[in-house]
Amino acid sequence: MLKFSCDYMEGAHPEILSRLSSINFDKNDGYGLDEYCESARENLRKLCCNDHAEVHFLVGGTQTNTVVLDSILRFNEGVLAASTGHINVHEAGAIEAAGHKVIPLKASNGKVDIAAMERLLHLLKTECDVVGWEHYVAPRVLYISFPTEYGSLYTLADLKQLRSICDEYGLYLYADGARLGYGLSSPGCDVTLPELARLCDVFYLGGTKVGALFGEAVVVSNPELTIPRGLIKQRGAMLAKGWLLGVQFDTLLASTTGRFEDTLYYRIARNAVDRALHLCAEMVAKGYEKYIDSPTNQQFFIADNAILPELSQKVAFDSFSAYDETHTVIRFCTSWATTAAQIDALLSLL
Amino acid sequence: MLKFSCDYMEGAHPEILSRLSSINFDKNDGYGLDEYCESARENLRKLCCNDHAEVHFLVGGTQTNTVVLDSILRFNEGVLAASTGHINVHEAGAIEAAGHKVIPLKASNGKVDIAAMERLLHLLKTECDVVGWEHYVAPRVLYISFPTEYGSLYTLADLKQLRSICDEYGLYLYADGARLGYGLSSPGCDVTLPELARLCDVFYLGGTKVGALFGEAVVVSNPELTIPRGLIKQRGAMLAKGWLLGVQFDTLLASTTGRFEDTLYYRIARNAVDRALHLCAEMVAKGYEKYIDSPTNQQFFIADNAILPELSQKVAFDSFSAYDETHTVIRFCTSWATTAAQIDALLSLL
Amino acid sequence: MLKFSCDYMEGAHPEILSRLSSINFDKNDGYGLDEYCESARENLRKLCCNDHAEVHFLVGGTQTNTVVLDSILRFNEGVLAASTGHINVHEAGAIEAAGHKVIPLKASNGKVDIAAMERLLHLLKTECDVVGWEHYVAPRVLYISFPTEYGSLYTLADLKQLRSICDEYGLYLYADGARLGYGLSSPGCDVTLPELARLCDVFYLGGTKVGALFGEAVVVSNPELTIPRGLIKQRGAMLAKGWLLGVQFDTLLASTTGRFEDTLYYRIARNAVDRALHLCAEMVAKGYEKYIDSPTNQQFFIADNAILPELSQKVAFDSFSAYDETHTVIRFCTSWATTAAQIDALLSLL
Amino acid sequence: MLKFSCDYMEGAHPEILSRLSSINFDKNDGYGLDEYCESARENLRKLCCNDHAEVHFLVGGTQTNTVVLDSILRFNEGVLAASTGHINVHEAGAIEAAGHKVIPLKASNGKVDIAAMERLLHLLKTECDVVGWEHYVAPRVLYISFPTEYGSLYTLADLKQLRSICDEYGLYLYADGARLGYGLSSPGCDVTLPELARLCDVFYLGGTKVGALFGEAVVVSNPELTIPRGLIKQRGAMLAKGWLLGVQFDTLLASTTGRFEDTLYYRIARNAVDRALHLCAEMVAKGYEKYIDSPTNQQFFIADNAILPELSQKVAFDSFSAYDETHTVIRFCTSWATTAAQIDALLSLL
Repeated sequence: MLKFSCDYMEGAHPEILSRLSSINFDKNDGYGLDEYCESARENLRKLCCNDHAEVHFLVGGTQTNTVVLDSILRFNEGVLAASTGHINVHEAGAIEAAGHKVIPLKASNGKVDIAAMERLLHLLKTECDVVGWEHYVAPRVLYISFPTEYGSLYTLADLKQLRSICDEYGLYLYADGARLGYGLSSPGCDVTLPELARLCDVFYLGGTKVGALFGEAVVVSNPELTIPRGLIKQRGAMLAKGWLLGVQFDTLLASTTGRFEDTLYYRIARNAVDRALHLCAEMVAKGYEKYIDSPTNQQFFIADNAILPELSQKVAFDSFSAYDETHTVIRFCTSWATTAAQIDALLSLL
Repeated sequence: MLKFSCDYMEGAHPEILSRLSSINFDKNDGYGLDEYCESARENLRKLCCNDHAEVHFLVGGTQTNTVVLDSILRFNEGVLAASTGHINVHEAGAIEAAGHKVIPLKASNGKVDIAAMERLLHLLKTECDVVGWEHYVAPRVLYISFPTEYGSLYTLADLKQLRSICDEYGLYLYADGARLGYGLSSPGCDVTLPELARLCDVFYLGGTKVGALFGEAVVVSNPELTIPRGLIKQRGAMLAKGWLLGVQFDTLLASTTGRFEDTLYYRIARNAVDRALHLCAEMVAKGYEKYIDSPTNQQFFIADNAILPELSQKVAFDSFSAYDETHTVIRFCTSWATTAAQIDALLSLL
Repeated sequence: MLKFSCDYMEGAHPEILSRLSSINFDKNDGYGLDEYCESARENLRKLCCNDHAEVHFLVGGTQTNTVVLDSILRFNEGVLAASTGHINVHEAGAIEAAGHKVIPLKASNGKVDIAAMERLLHLLKTECDVVGWEHYVAPRVLYISFPTEYGSLYTLADLKQLRSICDEYGLYLYADGARLGYGLSSPGCDVTLPELARLCDVFYLGGTKVGALFGEAVVVSNPELTIPRGLIKQRGAMLAKGWLLGVQFDTLLASTTGRFEDTLYYRIARNAVDRALHLCAEMVAKGYEKYIDSPTNQQFFIADNAILPELSQKVAFDSFSAYDETHTVIRFCTSWATTAAQIDALLSLL
Repeated sequence: MLKFSCDYMEGAHPEILSRLSSINFDKNDGYGLDEYCESARENLRKLCCNDHAEVHFLVGGTQTNTVVLDSILRFNEGVLAASTGHINVHEAGAIEAAGHKVIPLKASNGKVDIAAMERLLHLLKTECDVVGWEHYVAPRVLYISFPTEYGSLYTLADLKQLRSICDEYGLYLYADGARLGYGLSSPGCDVTLPELARLCDVFYLGGTKVGALFGEAVVVSNPELTIPRGLIKQRGAMLAKGWLLGVQFDTLLASTTGRFEDTLYYRIARNAVDRALHLCAEMVAKGYEKYIDSPTNQQFFIADNAILPELSQKVAFDSFSAYDETHTVIRFCTSWATTAAQIDALLSLL
């Protein structure tokens, strides 16, 4: 059966497997203190144009969001997020389990409604500067996902505006980049990796969904922040064989030119986006109605419920949400490994 | 200066002070294991018409909400609450600090929008019964405040409907009764204490705002639930001299007739409500516009911002929220100790 | 029946009750922002000879220990304590529930074995400076109780040595003063309140066991530390009617001379100590064997198990621990309220 | 340089890498719901002779210990462990960060001192059955490591005795099997996998140190216990590409005969043990003094500090602890991948 239900169904790019095999019997130091991690960190710093960024490699997305936010938030501080944001709806309450409130913001197509956020911050500040913050959860971090859970992207102008609001209200800006490659490599993206690194205090570049077996690379751009290794260990997030992460990211992020566009990571991410955009164009041509305009590897359509049973027999996709009584929003995901033949096969049966 | 800013500005009903004085040099057992606590527990069980209810006396409201919810919620379970509910906005993230997500619900005048809640529960169940609950926070408790933070009250029909939805979706119903007396003694209330105790799995009857120096009485009606004393101790919520709580609630809740209406608690709460309703009627007569129709001890008005500076010189009130660019919602609270003279003084300067 | 089982069986010093009554119908601001709290804070700063100390009034001891330690400890940091320390054995795991490890130290009569502590710190540092602290819990606070749970006292020389070790290893020193009055007022104590305040980074002066209805006064001497009010609120430790604490401590700690020895707190504490030492001397004269040499209000004796059933009929005491197969260590506590007549009655039946 | 510092320096057994490569472009379901996980679970149940055991695959040891203990412990319950146990000293306070106290027990060569444990349990029960458990941490789980951190093993008689004590005091028995293969395959072990599975309520079989890239297989033998998937997700411990774990354990634990001794896991673990015992015998013959008698893959010697600088130039080993002023306990670890040639090379330079 054809499968387009998500972007973490395949293993890893063959170069990674091959490299892991070639060093399989070498003896490496544990816990991320090996040469591969160091090289990968250096690669990432260069790609971000930030020589002093702190870089950590963790295993998965929920773990990463929890560790990052737990390293920043204290006492009655909380994190703002789009109501549809991953930390608010799909992480089983991991942030709250670490003791921190997620304050949901009005969202549109996965993106934070910036005006609504500003109103909330203004209102809270007006009130709490008078009565004191001690009874409230004080917003201290703004969490965004890039791309969002709806495949959408913040523009450079959006990010600058968010940065400016964060500065005004004393917030840190954190970008969840589980699918970062699928965002940055999109023709619809006007943000570069160094710009993202500069505008965010912390972000992560996801490997699990973009060519690695697993792994997320956290970049702490802001030198005021740090993620203590003791926290990582305490949260069970420090991989004993840390070099497995190092090798993967070192392979994905090597670039002889120093340009992000020349990394394996970018190239394979771009493949997914190209396949997705081709799929979308053809489906629209066939009369399918787009739910939103996604420039990345996730494509959403409004499907008549009547066609779903048969379609489900032939292809796995994600039933994203109910659209109305008789229609459902369905999602097709491509990945770094998706082939032209797979897209053609899908199109031929739609 | 006149003060109507909240309902916890005075000490305790004189009968309580007098009784505390009279036993001051007696030697009592600690931690709530004394005769006064036992008698107060017995009083409360009788008033609730539930001989087997578990009763605990805690010190304050945030503490009580945290202990109660922490005793029920496990793993990725969360608590539903009106977005304006106390646990969602005024407790500094205490529930999240205990590891649990507060899931905000659309609210109207402090009350949960029941239809919106039902839609959310239905949607979640539909989705998670397919994909599994493990990525989601599963609603397990519905938190309501009675009266709400807006002074409003759920009707008996409301409570029955909420109970029925809770049963359908496997939720416990918990009522925060920080101002319970001001609700149950209101002429606008069609719910009795035994009905509340029967319809809720857990609730608390607040002392801090209704005649006690401090203290909240938690009633666990549902025999499937229990609040372990070890949890109370661990949370720093077990008062060494627990009899201080026992004496207060024993005094407030004694009733020779067995009727709640004959308790000191009810009578002094009723005083506050009567004063508030009188104040409201007179203010409306003077042309003030009510913000909402509150049948309890909190009264809300829409005030022109122009009058606020002068008014603030003469009387303390609560600037509840901005109404529009030129108006503010202001709140006047009465308490069990408010006198007719104080209301008259306030009315004379409005 | 005579009762000497603990020191929190009576209410409060009558001056406190009287003052609470006299202001009962005044309207006070909540949450510790009232004039009584401010006055009490000022009194305490003066008595400590530290004009800039941060002072908070909390309700109980376990709550206080949790809030203080939670305000200091981060990530994989822990608190050292005598294995017999209150936080290690009698607080239901409250510190761990807040996420922090209590690292037990060898203890003698309730006091930390200083040499053993120094060895542990040296060993840990030697190891972790090489392999990194990230796999370990790094000691960050030394918790002591003053007096200890065994009634014993650290000498001034002890405290200076502990301070010096703390400085060498980067630890904060925190003293749990649940019974501070019974320590500082003891003829066996060579430490003054200002010395304690100077040598500790944080300590608390207990009210619950020394003349108050309830309440503990936390003094943060070290200006690098702070206990955010948002944390206090979040932990359910912010009393709505904070002035109840203010009035109590203001009464206990007023001193026209500025000397601690002239406060009500000191005087009533001294009463308990005098009674206890008298009791001890007489019991030894009667042939009872002291378990340890306690200069404070708790007195421990080695009792033949054969006498316990009858003794228990006449007087309540604490069976502290088994001594051997046939003997038990029993504890008699006096309090600020203990009278000479009560001691005489006890002695007459021993 | 020769490296014997730990047992997680190499990658994975080549069969695992080969199998991962062969399915690399297959599209698998996520989160452990794939066929490989299911097959591996079935294998493990058979090897344990427990058809109904619940099996979960997690990523690392600290994570596993935290998730397992958090699934069992509630409120003021804690876990007993040897003072030298991994959860007490090498996990950065992970258990406490999840809210639970680790109660250290006297230990000998890594094993719990059973008599001391029984005394503690008896003492606690005697005391708390009188005064109530609410002020104490109630032991609810006994954590053991098998083999221990010192390479030692509990005998079958030990385990039966521990089981019996656990039953008497209402404790669950949990075995940390990070190096389980190196224990069960030792000629010095008289415990079989089914016996371990029967005597423990929960245990895990470690992959990270025994032939896998990473991964630990948790077996919940006791049907009263369960580890909810929502907890696993919430703790960031649910691997998106769960089949990576499934494939690894399915490969390691396949057995055509159904005998554990015929699994790849057993065979490669046995290699490490044989190499280690050979190394030990030869070193003793060369005059090195054993620190303890370890029948598993970790071997400990008492080395004169004078030889360490030169030795460290040629071989990496672990400086386990100071022995006395002039000697150090050093540890050599073999692994599933250690070759005879490596041992010979080591022996030739000692």
